[in-house]
Amino acid sequence: MLHKIALLATVTILGVLEQAYFAIQVIAFRRKFKVSPPITSGPPEFERIFRAQVNCSEYFPIFLSLLWVAGIFSHQALAAFCGLIYLYARYQYFRGYAHSAERRLGPMYFSTGVLCVLIGLSVVGLLVHFVRRF
Amino acid sequence: MLHKIALLATVTILGVLEQAYFAIQVIAFRRKFKVSPPITSGPPEFERIFRAQVNCSEYFPIFLSLLWVAGIFSHQALAAFCGLIYLYARYQYFRGYAHSAERRLGPMYFSTGVLCVLIGLSVVGLLVHFVRRF
Amino acid sequence: MLHKIALLATVTILGVLEQAYFAIQVIAFRRKFKVSPPITSGPPEFERIFRAQVNCSEYFPIFLSLLWVAGIFSHQALAAFCGLIYLYARYQYFRGYAHSAERRLGPMYFSTGVLCVLIGLSVVGLLVHFVRRF
Repeated sequence: MLHKIALLATVTILGVLEQAYFAIQVIAFRRKFKVSPPITSGPPEFERIFRAQVNCSEYFPIFLSLLWVAGIFSHQALAAFCGLIYLYARYQYFRGYAHSAERRLGPMYFSTGVLCVLIGLSVVGLLVHFVRRF
Repeated sequence: MLHKIALLATVTILGVLEQAYFAIQVIAFRRKFKVSPPITSGPPEFERIFRAQVNCSEYFPIFLSLLWVAGIFSHQALAAFCGLIYLYARYQYFRGYAHSAERRLGPMYFSTGVLCVLIGLSVVGLLVHFVRRF
Repeated sequence: MLHKIALLATVTILGVLEQAYFAIQVIAFRRKFKVSPPITSGPPEFERIFRAQVNCSEYFPIFLSLLWVAGIFSHQALAAFCGLIYLYARYQYFRGYAHSAERRLGPMYFSTGVLCVLIGLSVVGLLVHFVRRF
């Protein structure tokens, strides 16, 4: 049984480690620009990093939902592969946003594309399941 | 095995699509009111839409947790049905909040009620499981 | 099958109830300091409670991911026990942050430590799984 979800679990842990990396970057920028919690506004450099991290956190449950439904109902290895690409795109998004708001756009559209592939895999997998069953 | 979670997975994907719809609405309002990221404050119309989306994102993992625990330990179809009602209530919440802060209240209380039903299903399901086992 | 995840599901529901408690506290502070939605800024007492709740919400999906992967691939009871300690640390974090920004630090570091233990359990569990399989 476990081998059917082991790759998904591995990508999930990698995603958690990436989120931890983003959180640590925000802490570093808080110190650099002396923006102490609970304050969340400050110089644009800080606000961009902060928003990048918030945005990645917001999409994390959506990403995990799609990763697991696609992986369980469609194809585990394919879903896990898409998951790795998504995490790479999010890393590029974070680095791009740190540089300027414009540079976040490319990786943002790309990561959205990967999520669309995972939605496609999920929907097809679920449709095949229901058609076979009824 | 898969048929025991297929409805839960379907509602999960519908929930993801709803979150995507909310995110697209925020992008549209950002353009309409010229509020460029990383800025999150602006005219009240924008701030209401923005907060509506943040609130829905915040509750999304809570909703999924309850949906799956209730569906696995209690009754899948009942949990999935509650899930659909929750997603509908969240849509009404989003539309209501877009209109005024007051109009969000009705759907908010209703969606909280649905979550309480899912908590009830989860707790009863888990209790029955533990009582049978020991 | 269900007995292999019943403890994880129980801790998940307890986590949801804790998140609900935090959300209710924010509502109470909104009323006390007359900070009506969609506004999120106000006196420092409100902003600390608000940020405490946002931070706990942000970490909730990360916590659940680690709880479940550690519990399924390593040791359910141990992961569930770590989960209970994490929820307790988060409660102390919330109460500490309500008092002052400094008092959040101790429980924050402690809860991060618990997450690291869950990461360790997950990684070891996955490694053992893959080594056995290949």
